[in-house]
Amino acid sequence: MPHQSINAERLLARIRELGAIGRDGRGQLTRLAASDTEKLGRDALVGWLEAAGLDIAIDRIGNIFGVWQSHDNAGQLPLMLGSHIDTVINAGIYDGCYGVLAALEVIETLKEQGFTPARPIAVTAFTNEEGVRYAPDMLGSLVHVGGLAVEAALATVATDGTVLGSELARIGYAGSVEPGSLKPHAYVELHIEQGPVLDREAITIGAVENLQGISWQRVTIDGVANHAGTTPMAMRCDAGLAAARIGLFLRDHITRSNAPSVATIGTMRFEPDAINVIPSRATFTVDLRDPDEDRLQGLEAALADFLLRVAAEEGVEISVERLARFQPVAFDLGIVATIEASAKARGLKSRRMTSGAGHDAQMIARIAPTAMIFVPSRDGISHNPREHTEADDLVAGANVLLDVVERIACSGWKGS
Amino acid sequence: MPHQSINAERLLARIRELGAIGRDGRGQLTRLAASDTEKLGRDALVGWLEAAGLDIAIDRIGNIFGVWQSHDNAGQLPLMLGSHIDTVINAGIYDGCYGVLAALEVIETLKEQGFTPARPIAVTAFTNEEGVRYAPDMLGSLVHVGGLAVEAALATVATDGTVLGSELARIGYAGSVEPGSLKPHAYVELHIEQGPVLDREAITIGAVENLQGISWQRVTIDGVANHAGTTPMAMRCDAGLAAARIGLFLRDHITRSNAPSVATIGTMRFEPDAINVIPSRATFTVDLRDPDEDRLQGLEAALADFLLRVAAEEGVEISVERLARFQPVAFDLGIVATIEASAKARGLKSRRMTSGAGHDAQMIARIAPTAMIFVPSRDGISHNPREHTEADDLVAGANVLLDVVERIACSGWKGS
Repeated sequence: MPHQSINAERLLARIRELGAIGRDGRGQLTRLAASDTEKLGRDALVGWLEAAGLDIAIDRIGNIFGVWQSHDNAGQLPLMLGSHIDTVINAGIYDGCYGVLAALEVIETLKEQGFTPARPIAVTAFTNEEGVRYAPDMLGSLVHVGGLAVEAALATVATDGTVLGSELARIGYAGSVEPGSLKPHAYVELHIEQGPVLDREAITIGAVENLQGISWQRVTIDGVANHAGTTPMAMRCDAGLAAARIGLFLRDHITRSNAPSVATIGTMRFEPDAINVIPSRATFTVDLRDPDEDRLQGLEAALADFLLRVAAEEGVEISVERLARFQPVAFDLGIVATIEASAKARGLKSRRMTSGAGHDAQMIARIAPTAMIFVPSRDGISHNPREHTEADDLVAGANVLLDVVERIACSGWKGS
Repeated sequence: MPHQSINAERLLARIRELGAIGRDGRGQLTRLAASDTEKLGRDALVGWLEAAGLDIAIDRIGNIFGVWQSHDNAGQLPLMLGSHIDTVINAGIYDGCYGVLAALEVIETLKEQGFTPARPIAVTAFTNEEGVRYAPDMLGSLVHVGGLAVEAALATVATDGTVLGSELARIGYAGSVEPGSLKPHAYVELHIEQGPVLDREAITIGAVENLQGISWQRVTIDGVANHAGTTPMAMRCDAGLAAARIGLFLRDHITRSNAPSVATIGTMRFEPDAINVIPSRATFTVDLRDPDEDRLQGLEAALADFLLRVAAEEGVEISVERLARFQPVAFDLGIVATIEASAKARGLKSRRMTSGAGHDAQMIARIAPTAMIFVPSRDGISHNPREHTEADDLVAGANVLLDVVERIACSGWKGS
C-alpha cells in the first residue's frame, strides 16, 4: 500500500541550515548549551515551529516545546517527539538536530495531509543534552521528569564559570512554564546511531528496545618506581603492566561470555611518565556498559575480582573510585514493535538494538512509554565533523517516525 | 691478614658536606650541570683536592682532575678514578659524589700510608653525567674519549635555553686543558648500584663486568576513535588495548627466554584520552636493555615481529621511532677479578654483575681498561632523596677501591 511521505527536501534543507549556525572562523560547529551560538540555533528552531503554526512553550530550564493541538484534542496528553540542538565542540550536524527537525517535518506533513490526531503532538528540544558545558548531560529532560529540581539545575556552574540560569536568561530562553507540566502520553526520539552496527550490517532502521546501563570507575594502581635498567623483571612492581592486564582481561571476559557488554579504557596516565623509570602509578578509567542490569553487575564483580588478583600477582595496590552509574533503561516494546512494523511496511530492513549512548529518551522513559528509532552513522562516527548519515537514510528514518506517529496519535492506540 | 683502611669518618663527613650543597628552600638537593649550585659543589671539591696536595686541572669541557704525581712517576699514564658530582632534580647524596669522594679518600689514605705508586693516580669529576640539563648524558666523559668534539659539546643548548660553554665560563669552570690529554692507564669507578640486586641478596660488593646495551624506541599505535557505548567489542580498533599487549609480551618473552634482559614501558599517552571514547592513538616508549648485543638485537627483533602481529590482529597501524641505541660495554676482566679478590680478602661477599644504568665508565672503557665497583642501594632507589647506602657499605666499597688501586698502581700491574 502506498504511504504518504515527508517532504525530504524541506527536512534536509533545515538540517543543513541549522548545521550552518554556530560555526567559528575555521568553520567548526560548536553550539554549547545556552551559549550565544546555541541562542541562534534556538531562534531558528522557534521560527520554524511558529511558521508551522505550533504553540510555543519555553519552560524554566529552557526546554522548547512546539505543540500541535486542536480544540478537540487539547485535553489529551500529547505524543511527544524530539531530541536536542545543543552540540559538542567541533560537532557534526546530525546528532540531536535530526530528531528535532524530523519531528517538526512529521507534524507539518501530517497537517498538510489533513490528518486529525486524537491527541496533541509536540516537538521538543531539551536543554543541555550533551553535558559539555553543564553537568550532568541530559539535564533538560532530567528536570522535565522531576529527576533534578529546577532550582538546582539553574544554579549549575559551567566549566567556564557561568551559571546555567543566568545564561538562559541572557540568551532569552529562561521560560516561565513549570518543567514537567507538559506530560507526554508517549515519547519517540529519532536519532543517528552514533555507532557502527547499522552501517556495518547495511540496515536502515534500528528499533531501539533498550539503553545500556553505564558504570564508570577510575582505577589507580600504585606500584614502585625503579630504575628501568637496574631492576630485574622479577623484582618489579610495575603499575603500567598491571594496568595493561585490566583492559585485556575485560575484553577476553566479554568475548568468552558472548555478552553484548562493552568495556573501554579511554584514559590512561603513568607516573612519573619517564622513559627510564618503571611506572609507580597508573591511573585510568573503566567504562562498562550492558543493557542488562544483572549482567552489568556481573561484569563489575568480575572486574573487582580480577583487580584483587592483579594486586596480589603484581605486588601493587589498587584503588577504585566510582564516577557514575546508571541502570539500563528498557523502552516500550509496543512502540518498538510499531517501529519494526512501520519499517517493514516501507520495505526497509530493520533490527532491534540497544542504544550504547545516553539520550533524552532514557529520562522520559521514567514517566511515559518511550522508544527510539536509529538510522545509520557512517563508520559509527559522531561527535565529530565527519559524522554522516546518507540522505536516503535520513528520509527513511523520518518516514518511519511519520508512520509511528500516525499509529500512536490515532484514537485507537493505548500503549503497551 | 690486616689491611690498611680508609678514614671512614673523613669520607662520610665529606659525602654529607657535599650533599648539603645545592639545597633549595624546601631542602631539596639539585645541582644541575654548570649551574650556580653545581659551582658551589665544584668549589668544595677543588678545595678538598688542593688541600690533599693534588695538582688541579680543568679541561675545556669542565671536567675536573686532581692528580697525585711525583717526580718519579710523572711520565707514566695515570690510574684514573672518579665519577661525577652533578645531580638530577631533587636528588640523593650518593649518586656520583660517592665515587669522586671515595677516590679522593683513597689517595689521601695511600699518601698517609707512605705508599709509593708506580704511576700517577687521578681523581676525576666529569661534567654533565646526568644529562638532565644538557644532552647527552655522560657528556664530559664522552668528550674526554673523543666521542664528541669539544666545540660541539660547548655549543649544547639546555632545556632552559642556556649554552653549556657560556655556563661553564660563567661559573668559572671553562678550563684550558684540551680534553683527552690526560690519558688513563686504567679507570675504576666506585658507585652505588642504583638497583636492588645487592640489597636483596645482602651482598656488599658488586664487581661490575659489563654495562647493558640500551635500545630506546617510541611506538605510536593508530587505531580508530569511536564511541565507547555504541561500538561492539568486535568492531573496535583500540590503540590502548594494542599498546597493553606490547608490555605484557615483552615481559613474557623475557621470562620465557630466561635472559637478563629488561624491558620497560615508562611513558604512555592516550588520545583523545576521554573516558567514553575508544583510544585512537597510544604513544609510548620502550626501553630494552641487555648486556649482550646479540641478545639485545634478538629482543628488538622479537618486538618488531610482535608489533606486526598486533597491527594485523588489532586492525591498527604501528610506527616506531628510534630514540637511542648503545651497544653493551664489556669491562676489563682483569680489574673485575682484582675487585673480587680484594673483596674476598676483606671478608666481604661479592658477585659479578651488570650495570643497568649508564656511567662515565662506559665512555672511558673505549680508551682504557675499565671496571666498576658497586655497593648496595637500599630498595634499589636512586635519583630520589630516599637514595641510601649504609655507612658500613660505603666504607667497605672505598676500602675495596683502596685495595684495587694499590694492586693496579704498583709497578707489577700490566692490565689484562
